[in-house]
This record gives sequence, structure tokens and C-alpha cells, in this order.
Amino acid sequence: MKSRGYYVFNGAVSLEGKLEQVECWGETGDDVFFNQPFEALHHNMHVSYKRCCKWVLVLGLLLGTLFHFWGPSSNLEEDLRPRRGSAIQALLSGKIYHIMSDYSEIPYKVKENVARELAQNTCICLAGEETFHLPFSDLLFPRVWAHNLQHAFLETRPDPDNVKNHRAEEYHHFQKRSYSPVDMLIIAEANNPLQYPTQGLEVQPLKTVIIPGLGLRQEDRGNYMFETEGHQSFFTIKVGHRVVPKLYNSGQSEGYNITSLVTIATKTFLRYDKLKDLIDSIRQFYPTVTIVIADDNEHPQPVTGPHIEQYIMPFGKGWFAGRNLAVSQVSTKYVLWVDDDFIFTANTQLEKMVDILEKTTLDLVGGAVREVTGYTATYRHKISVEEGGEDGNCLHIRNGYHHVIKGYPNCVVADAVINFFMAQTDKIRQVGFDPRLSRSAHLEFFIDALGILHIGSCSDVIVNHASKIKLPWTKTEAQKTYEKFRYSSNSANNDLHNEVFYFKNRFKCMTSQ
Amino acid sequence: MKSRGYYVFNGAVSLEGKLEQVECWGETGDDVFFNQPFEALHHNMHVSYKRCCKWVLVLGLLLGTLFHFWGPSSNLEEDLRPRRGSAIQALLSGKIYHIMSDYSEIPYKVKENVARELAQNTCICLAGEETFHLPFSDLLFPRVWAHNLQHAFLETRPDPDNVKNHRAEEYHHFQKRSYSPVDMLIIAEANNPLQYPTQGLEVQPLKTVIIPGLGLRQEDRGNYMFETEGHQSFFTIKVGHRVVPKLYNSGQSEGYNITSLVTIATKTFLRYDKLKDLIDSIRQFYPTVTIVIADDNEHPQPVTGPHIEQYIMPFGKGWFAGRNLAVSQVSTKYVLWVDDDFIFTANTQLEKMVDILEKTTLDLVGGAVREVTGYTATYRHKISVEEGGEDGNCLHIRNGYHHVIKGYPNCVVADAVINFFMAQTDKIRQVGFDPRLSRSAHLEFFIDALGILHIGSCSDVIVNHASKIKLPWTKTEAQKTYEKFRYSSNSANNDLHNEVFYFKNRFKCMTSQ
Repeated sequence: MKSRGYYVFNGAVSLEGKLEQVECWGETGDDVFFNQPFEALHHNMHVSYKRCCKWVLVLGLLLGTLFHFWGPSSNLEEDLRPRRGSAIQALLSGKIYHIMSDYSEIPYKVKENVARELAQNTCICLAGEETFHLPFSDLLFPRVWAHNLQHAFLETRPDPDNVKNHRAEEYHHFQKRSYSPVDMLIIAEANNPLQYPTQGLEVQPLKTVIIPGLGLRQEDRGNYMFETEGHQSFFTIKVGHRVVPKLYNSGQSEGYNITSLVTIATKTFLRYDKLKDLIDSIRQFYPTVTIVIADDNEHPQPVTGPHIEQYIMPFGKGWFAGRNLAVSQVSTKYVLWVDDDFIFTANTQLEKMVDILEKTTLDLVGGAVREVTGYTATYRHKISVEEGGEDGNCLHIRNGYHHVIKGYPNCVVADAVINFFMAQTDKIRQVGFDPRLSRSAHLEFFIDALGILHIGSCSDVIVNHASKIKLPWTKTEAQKTYEKFRYSSNSANNDLHNEVFYFKNRFKCMTSQ
Repeated sequence: MKSRGYYVFNGAVSLEGKLEQVECWGETGDDVFFNQPFEALHHNMHVSYKRCCKWVLVLGLLLGTLFHFWGPSSNLEEDLRPRRGSAIQALLSGKIYHIMSDYSEIPYKVKENVARELAQNTCICLAGEETFHLPFSDLLFPRVWAHNLQHAFLETRPDPDNVKNHRAEEYHHFQKRSYSPVDMLIIAEANNPLQYPTQGLEVQPLKTVIIPGLGLRQEDRGNYMFETEGHQSFFTIKVGHRVVPKLYNSGQSEGYNITSLVTIATKTFLRYDKLKDLIDSIRQFYPTVTIVIADDNEHPQPVTGPHIEQYIMPFGKGWFAGRNLAVSQVSTKYVLWVDDDFIFTANTQLEKMVDILEKTTLDLVGGAVREVTGYTATYRHKISVEEGGEDGNCLHIRNGYHHVIKGYPNCVVADAVINFFMAQTDKIRQVGFDPRLSRSAHLEFFIDALGILHIGSCSDVIVNHASKIKLPWTKTEAQKTYEKFRYSSNSANNDLHNEVFYFKNRFKCMTSQ
């Protein structure tokens, strides 16, 4: 047995503790073990070191010793090409077809109201219908817009067919690499006398475990040889290292020590005055918390002070590159993202965010940002993906949240939140911020986070937003330059967003409110 | 049914397409649906919007409409505390005990040679025995050293018991958070007339799927009501978003376009001359590849040129912080790590590394570093973790590799390699470089990578190492300062390493050659 790969283990068990015959396929192409008898009720993967050199005994002994200490662990080769069409799968597919078609004589049908809910083969890129046509109906009942990403992106390419093919190829590789035998459909055959662990088991490379629960239940016989009238059962054995934990030593204290648990991260560009206000406001409430600043100004000014770390980036490298940089430098369990124009107040109680992250399965929790007008935003959104076939899937973004969190009446579960949030450092790094997104971007992070981060939003942790209300003639030069960078929408930027959604995330359509 | 959480679904199926009785438990504590009859052969999770306001019809209609568009998706609460001891698991445990103890009357025993290989309850922190005592035996047969991390770290703490408790607490939280019902042991009972998908299925939140393969196989009856003589089967339904792909558009070309596929990343400190040599050598072979440089010098000098990005860090922030920063800025599919004193030659063929990463399941592939003496190192190591009980596990590091890779005769699979490697950008970011490790560190990354990265090493992709051979009186000031930082071993640094292994990774012992 090899040290890597997935195996499907087919065993008829002799209840004298002897596995009479085992067919064991390696997903790594190791056909050597096909139909090799096993002699023990276990999954032993030691490679035998029995090499014989009989003609020169001393030299042979020395060679043998040297080989043992210096030689390769194994001269056998492993085929590491990702494969999906192995012999075992062909066998399984045949089996499942047989099991499921056996019901053809017993009529059943799926109810109408169920069939309606099933996913169509391919999603259609349609905007929502306007249900009411009243004054202010757009305000009361926000319309849904559909953006056909496939057209938008491909029509700007000189070679759209090549792009489509390239994406299909990359997706195919992605599927092969991320495929796991635990995703296979295996149906337990009814009335099968074999007993086995259905969810399979895991074993570390070159280690031995006993497979739990293997058994054969038939009428008593004198002699238990391999004879089960052709019954087969399948389960997966995952061979691989277990992931090593990453635990954070935040010391022991009454309550939450924010300095040892949280790092505050931000990116700054052309707003050193606002950044200074942010830092001053943080220090009123958290005098020793570390603040990490990613800075891509053309002419950076030093930002100094205890527990402040400033990182200078190439000029204009951008928004998400800065975010990815800042979180890459965090060494506490949690990271708090803030914009450089936020102001902490007595309502910005980071302990509340730490509490919900410590006590629930949330990986990230957003707060609320209060504008100078008093309007407070949480920017909660729900995201869903609809299957779309070869051309890609459909992405749907809607305002709102899923449900309230028990024990935290001001907190809900959503798929995207506002740009003021605290997250598990390791989890947020696992998602990452795509460094190509240099100008405006927000939901792209949450789309990348789907299926990885469990996201919440609490409306009772509030940070203030420095005033944006400025009469045009009172704006400073810096402010005007900032707005030029921040709010200018150019075709290159749109093109980049289309590419990210169409190519990277493989969507053909996006609908949102 | 809720939009989040795991369910174990227990169904007796009526073959008229009616699920007569279903017991459905939410891992999210939703006992509301316990024993609620289901009426369709599917897993429908829509929440009903039926709210009745009968006394004021118009107002009621308006309220109803507003609620539909504005209201929360659901007023029901979800308990998000991670739990492991739910009712369903109690039921399962009882079932498994019953199944496995039913064999008590049929004797079997585990063979000696198997029992020997099974993991002991707790690993023991022992150095390897010296097998041969010959001249140069340490050279020929490297000894194994054991480092008792528990003693080494705790004896420097003023409050070792508190530290132990804190670590146990953090580990307990980590286990609860990373626990998944697909890890549960479920044994398929023999001769069970129920048919079902053993590896469970996945469904996205608020979507509907048909559960494949459900069935009941008994002798023909006129009336198929719920009557299976007490049989139960269990399988998991995972409710959650599917992860969105991250595909890279590297254009289409004959062969591998290194510029669009690879970014070269490095960290520099006090060696601008060597860095310049590195960049010049890269440009000879790859004139347009992007080079990302993390720089934590006290007095940074600008490093400029086309396709060069320099990032200035706080002084002395350190080695792994710099590595994490550099890889956080990469926007190509692959990233190549190099030290700032490497020299590219005609043997440094990055195409070979790209090829093996494109065509196999490897996530990272190391190369070889050639010293000026001609000695070429690949630094291949094998890593394994042995269970250790409450005090933590034992980490074992040995020289060597696992096996050769088919189709790539100069390449092998290992668990750690030298500091010259190419990796899938997203996968390497998923592991990350711990920014606390400021001085010497190397294997820590590979320990964090266990179970996440599939690692290889090819001896035919070679980079040169700038000469280190200097007579003491010819060393420059910069060189002396560098060596002071790089090679000084102080107790603070040792303490940090002990903390990382003992607390963060939860080891009690480390053995290595």
C-alpha cells in the first residue's frame, strides 16, 4: 500500500480474523496490489525491505545496511496525475446503475411542487420582473438587475473562443485536482450481509489502523470462507497527513484581552489626516492594540507610534493588494478590518465581536458604520450560485440576511457584510483578497469566501464614518485627487471586474439589486 | 429545514414516492422539525411565508407585501454554538455499540505483527538508539535527537499550569470548530433493507435536490407503509455553499508563458549587492517575469526596474513576515520562492517546475541549490506526527523522501524541501508563513503545510547559491551585520520556536536527525 492516494477497499471478511480476499485499488494507479491477498484484518501500509543479496555475504550485508539508512524509502513509482476515470469508478457506476434501475418495476413520481424547485439544467440570465409599477417603486421594491458577464467580457476579447476554451481547460484541471473520492456517490445496497464503516476512515501515511466495524452477517456456518453470493460494498480510505492545529496563545485574563487577541488592519491612500484621526480614536479605547497600515501613496509619510506598523507598497498598487498585505502581517487570533476614515467611539466595543467569534461557528462578523447624518449601514447581503452548465454559473446577490443568531439578538447570518468586520486570521487568509483588484471592490471577497467563511453581522458594534459632506469649493487638493482615484470608473477597471467574475470565478451572469 | 448546519436524515421510504415518516435533526439545535412528517421524496428547505392578517385586509395586504420585500428571510433563530454531543450522536453511538458488540460470540483476534504496528496510546519522547558504534558512525548513520518541547517551554513560564490549561482550552475549541459530521463513524448494519447514499450528499442553502438512491427492499406487499421492523440507517446531508473556483487566465501560448504563469518572490535584508546579482541573473533568462521583493532593512534603498515591486516593511520585522508579505502580492497562478543570494543559470528551468505542477496533483515542488563547491542540496525531509494524548503529539522529522514520481524520474514526493520552490499561489497562501518567525525558520512552514500541500522535489531544476566562502578579514561590514542577525541564536528566539511547536502546533516532543 502506498503513502498517498485514495483507495476503495472491497473486502469479504473471514471471521477468524483473516481477510480472505481483498481487492484494493489505488487511486494513484498502483495496480500492483490488485487482487493481492491480505493476511490481517487491518490496513497495513509498510513497505517491505526484503532485498536479498546472497552471493557476497559481508558486502551484501553492508550494502543492505547502507541501503536501509541511505536508500530511497521505496523504488516504486507513483503516478501523480489527477485521474477520475479509474477502474474502481467504472465498477461503482455499474453497481449504482444496477441498484437504482432495479426499481423500474415499482412506479413512483416526483411531486409537482418539488419538481418545480429543482435546479434547471442551466440558469438563464434574466433581470427580475417589475412586480409593482408605482411611484417610488424602485425605492420600495428594488429592482433586480442582470449583467451578462459572458457577453460583456468576451466581446472585448480579440479571440473570444480561445478565452472560452482556456477557461474550460482551467476549470477541468481545477475539477480534477479538487475531486475527492469522498464526493463519489456510493449507494448502500439493501439486504447486503456485509457490515462496514460507510463514511470511510482516515489513516496517516505509513501508519496502521484497524478498520472498525467490518463484519459479515449470515446464517451460522462451520467454515467462513469467501462466499457471499457476489455481494460487494464500497467505502473510502483516505491516506494522508492530518492537519496540524494552529492555536493562539493569548494569555489568560478575566474577560477578553483585546491587545493579545486582535490586530487592527487598514489601508491608507492620500488621507493621512483621516488616518491620524482613526488612530487617535482607537488609542482612546485600546491604547496598546497593534495597528497594521498598508500604504501605497506616491509620496509616503511616516506614520509612527507605539504598536503601529506601516508597510510601504509600490505607488497605487491598490485596494485589495493592500488588504491582503495587511492581513498577511497579523499574528493575533483575530484581525479587525477598518477603513482609514473610520472613527472609534464608545459604541465600538470590539469585545462583543470577539465574544461571538469565540462562542459560535462564525469565522467573520461585521459591524455597523454610522454616517454623520445618523444613518447606520450594515450592508448585509445574501449570495447564491445557480448551476449554469458549460458557459458558467449564475451569481445572485440580494439585500438581506438569512436568520438571527440565538443568544445574540442584534446579530444575524449573511453572506456579505460591510467593510468593518472582525475575522479569524487564519480563515480570512485562507480566502485572501485578490491583489489584482486595485480600485473599487468589495463583494468579490465575499464571493471568494462562499463555502469557506461562516459570516455574521451585528448591528450593535458601531464605528463612525468621518464626514464625507463637503461643499465642492471647500475640498482640498488631496481630497480631489483621492476622489479621482476612488470614484473614477474607467473601462479598464470594468474589464477587470468582468474578467474576475467571468474567468476566475466562472460565472456567465450576475444578478443583483 | 434551515439554511445552515448538518442534518442526519433517517428515512423509511414509501415507494409511492411518499416519505411516510422522517426524523430529521438539525445540528443547529433545531428540534422544531423532529418527527415532522414530510410529504415529498426530497430535501426541501423553503420556509413558508404564510402570515395571516385577517382583520384589516388592505393594510394586511400592504404589510404582507412590505414584509415579503423588506422583512427578514426568517424570524427563526439559529443556535450557532459548535456542539458535538447532540441527540443524534447519542443515538448513533448506541447503535454502533449494538452492532459491534453483536459479534462478541464469534471469536477473532488481531495478529501480533499487526498489533505491534498500531499506534500506542501516547508517544514517548525518546531519541533513537545508536545502532552502530563505528568511526564516523554519526556521519554514516545520523543519530536521531529528541527535544522535549513540553519541558523546554513550560519551564520558562512563570505559570506553566495556566499555559497548559489555556492550550487545552484552545485545542478543545479548535476541535469543536473543525469537527464535521462527515468525520462521524457510521457503520452500515448488515441485512438492512434500507438503501441510501452512504457518503451523504450536499445541497446549497435554500435549494432543493432529490436524494439519490433511497429505497426499501422487502418482499412484495400490497401496501407500503412505514414498517421496517425497526431498521435505521444514517447518512449526512451537508448544507452549505459550494466553493467558487479561482481560475487563472494566463493566455494561450505554445509551451509555458512564464511571465503570465509565475511571479518570483523573495525577501531581502542587508544584501542589496546580492539581490542585484539575483535580479540580473533572472533577467538573462526571464526578462519580463514579475519579481516581488519584501524588504525590512533599517535604511531601505530603492530597487527599481521594469516588473519589479518592492515593499518596505518595519525594520527587522523578519523572515517569515517578509515571506508572507511577498506571496500576498502575487497575482499569477504560481509563485517561485528564491533567497536573495541565489543566481539563476541555464539549469534554472522554471518550465520544468510549471510542467509538473500543471500535470500532477503536486501543490509545491522544490528544486536544488548548488553551492560554489559543486555540492547540490535538495533538503528533502519526511515528517510524521504520532498521537500523544493530552500533553500533545510527537513530531518526527527524518531525512529522505517517500517515492519517485512516475514520468518525472528526477522528482520525488516528500514532506519538506529546500528553500527554492514553486507553488500554487492559492494553496501556499492557504498555509501561510507565520509572521512571528523573524529569524531562522524553515520546517515550520512545512509542518503547517501537513495535510494541506502535496509536496515534491526535482533535482534537475538547479539554482546557484552565491558564494559564502569568505575569509574573516575580507568580510564587509554589511556581511558581518547580516551574519549577526542571521546566525545569532538567542534565548528569545529559542523560546519563540518552543512556543510555536508546543502551543501553536500542540506538540510535546520533536525528534529529528
